[in-house]
Amino acid sequence: MVFKVGLLGLGTVGTGTAKILLDSERRHPLLRSLEIHKVGVRSLDKPRDVELPQSCLTTDLAAIVNDPEIDIIVEVLGGLEPARTLILQALAQGKHVVTANKAVVSRYGGELFTAANKAGVYVLLEAAVGGGIPVIQPLKQALGVNRIQAVTGIVNGTTNYILTRMQEEGGDFEPILQDAQQLGYAEADPTADVDGWDAADKIAILASLAFGGRIDREAVYCEGIRQVSAADISYAKKLGFVIKLLAIARRNPTADHPTADHPTADSLQVRVHPTLVPKEHPLASVNGVYNAILVEGDPIGQVMFFGPGAGEGPTASAVVSDVMNIAATLHMESPATEKLPNPLLACSHEDYCTISPMDALVSRFYLRLLVKDRPGVIGHLGTTFGQHSVSLESIVQIGMQDNLAELVVVTHEVQEGNFQKAVAELRGFGETDAIASVLRVL
Amino acid sequence: MVFKVGLLGLGTVGTGTAKILLDSERRHPLLRSLEIHKVGVRSLDKPRDVELPQSCLTTDLAAIVNDPEIDIIVEVLGGLEPARTLILQALAQGKHVVTANKAVVSRYGGELFTAANKAGVYVLLEAAVGGGIPVIQPLKQALGVNRIQAVTGIVNGTTNYILTRMQEEGGDFEPILQDAQQLGYAEADPTADVDGWDAADKIAILASLAFGGRIDREAVYCEGIRQVSAADISYAKKLGFVIKLLAIARRNPTADHPTADHPTADSLQVRVHPTLVPKEHPLASVNGVYNAILVEGDPIGQVMFFGPGAGEGPTASAVVSDVMNIAATLHMESPATEKLPNPLLACSHEDYCTISPMDALVSRFYLRLLVKDRPGVIGHLGTTFGQHSVSLESIVQIGMQDNLAELVVVTHEVQEGNFQKAVAELRGFGETDAIASVLRVL
Repeated sequence: MVFKVGLLGLGTVGTGTAKILLDSERRHPLLRSLEIHKVGVRSLDKPRDVELPQSCLTTDLAAIVNDPEIDIIVEVLGGLEPARTLILQALAQGKHVVTANKAVVSRYGGELFTAANKAGVYVLLEAAVGGGIPVIQPLKQALGVNRIQAVTGIVNGTTNYILTRMQEEGGDFEPILQDAQQLGYAEADPTADVDGWDAADKIAILASLAFGGRIDREAVYCEGIRQVSAADISYAKKLGFVIKLLAIARRNPTADHPTADHPTADSLQVRVHPTLVPKEHPLASVNGVYNAILVEGDPIGQVMFFGPGAGEGPTASAVVSDVMNIAATLHMESPATEKLPNPLLACSHEDYCTISPMDALVSRFYLRLLVKDRPGVIGHLGTTFGQHSVSLESIVQIGMQDNLAELVVVTHEVQEGNFQKAVAELRGFGETDAIASVLRVL
Repeated sequence: MVFKVGLLGLGTVGTGTAKILLDSERRHPLLRSLEIHKVGVRSLDKPRDVELPQSCLTTDLAAIVNDPEIDIIVEVLGGLEPARTLILQALAQGKHVVTANKAVVSRYGGELFTAANKAGVYVLLEAAVGGGIPVIQPLKQALGVNRIQAVTGIVNGTTNYILTRMQEEGGDFEPILQDAQQLGYAEADPTADVDGWDAADKIAILASLAFGGRIDREAVYCEGIRQVSAADISYAKKLGFVIKLLAIARRNPTADHPTADHPTADSLQVRVHPTLVPKEHPLASVNGVYNAILVEGDPIGQVMFFGPGAGEGPTASAVVSDVMNIAATLHMESPATEKLPNPLLACSHEDYCTISPMDALVSRFYLRLLVKDRPGVIGHLGTTFGQHSVSLESIVQIGMQDNLAELVVVTHEVQEGNFQKAVAELRGFGETDAIASVLRVL
């Protein structure tokens, strides 16, 4: 049996995908049953890094998703449109879809999976999160027998590269971003990466799989790394932490025992923000462009997946592994009989998860601020926090800057709403010159 | 549809497995289609940590594998017999088998998979390596599209716990082993762990999956950690290394370009031994009872899987994930039609991999020896190594012990056969008091 693949896009990931499919020697034997039938490109004449017959190439993407000979569509165009529309057309034509498009899946996943279920086909997306790291398949299969408590990831290579260099060089954000842009580790428009949007797309997808419900992408709290300073990294280090952009999805701890006092019962936190990570934590040593995803569940405990989060080869490996999974399922179908869906590939949940507001989050906090160097200031700070039920672990004066005392406050686990109210009050103090930074602590 | 499970064994892993199957809430919905039908135990009266109807329990294990109502047999007895015979009987009865038994699979895998293929059923073994870490399924599925170059693992928690404590406390092997036995981290008879047999079973299994061929377990080189001393750990640390018991399966680098000079073409190295690991290597920071498996392939690069390598919960998670995979496949089968095997679950290879002899290995080496403190000794050493084509990176006198000079030699990458010949010659020198240790360097 041979299954025909239509490839939408021949950029970095598309090229990598074609290379694997065209050269199956010493790879899984199932790859030999796959054949690239059509490849949709923007320009027919562009020089390519992969050899494909000219007859394969077309600029007519709609013709590919409507081609009755094609069994599996691989969408590696990126961006919201025309990707979303083409995927929906492919599904309507009864074709399976493999996509690396985290933006489309995180925003339109509900629509896509409903359409796929209706057509009796699959939408697979291993490449959308963590590049080559197998994490989507393990979440759907091996880890699914667990009650997942949390998924915590370093899922954006660009920001991890920048933070790692800031950590190693003691440099500030802007110059290192510029250097990263020149070296090709950051895009000319770095917004989606450095403001955390890409990580938010990915944690929305991981949360959906881990907790078996749809996630409203708009409800994902998202804070980037622009405001992280060399000073914070240096103080965090003295306290035994590294600063990482973490994407976190966690079942609220009260969810097992809902009470009237805990409005967050049976709900999730889904959030992306720079975080102080204890240096002995498994995620603390994930550096450079590497990604890692830590899954916590009952009864498995902690497992972590680590690897290259982007790049032609790794991402193509993930794309082709999905194509192979579909091929395996197609191999098992007797054409004569009714098709029964593979419950480990199909997406069965249709309800949305409840996402709790950030105010309800319980976390430790790190706060750096500049105050006038007067007696009683620390007492005033401590009293204010106390009045808002924010219990402090430490207040330390770490230096002087232009006649101002620079203080670092670390709290115990407190409710974010209370902490933010206390910080708002501090901001209004005559002694306060600036709230330099507020960071959450893992 | 409900599928019936027969459980052979109700020890630690069996109990954990039963707990998950009896309590499916907030786990994958497929678990609801699984039912524990019979549980085979040694004694019916023993107090249990899990509630099962007394009618489920039986001491007649053969009756379970022959019970026509049972679809899936879970073998968590451990040991070679009666496990092997029972698995073969179950397969002959057309039952799928899930096993956590690395000893049986590494030794009798060929026999089991041949029997399974003949009967059109599966033998799944996620729990046999790395406890709860999903590594077998990713190797069979997501990573299968790659050309795997190497699998390198810390796959034995007991030895990693002992080496971690030796590293942290500066202590020697024997007292820490005894303490580990009292704390329950090592067995009363620690041989299978500390002599590397357990790790050798596991790397034989991983190599078979990664390289798509059967592995002769007897051909796996295996050296344990008994001879690793506090002195070696301390010197290794000074050189920038930690000592880990690594299980390594690697395609020989000459395999892509076989020549008459390289008899190892198209062959594998499969070996277990204590190894100096550079401290910035991803495996270097895997401590305590944790396991980690690093997979290197083309085009994915490096991916690592990290987590608890043993224990009731993690291992049971792996067992039940296999049971669920089988249930998913059974769900897709229309009873009316001929069964087509799932090519991602079945084991298709029947040929044996060629394993190259250790003499042919190219590696760096660390050697610690005690010599008489005479002029010219270091020159004599250097000359001997040179005569055997062993190029040295350093010879350092690290101390004096009972009027003997303690030297540490580190080589460049050299052929093991040459290195061992040179060491044999050194042993015969009048100046040599003792070859204290020989370790390979990653």
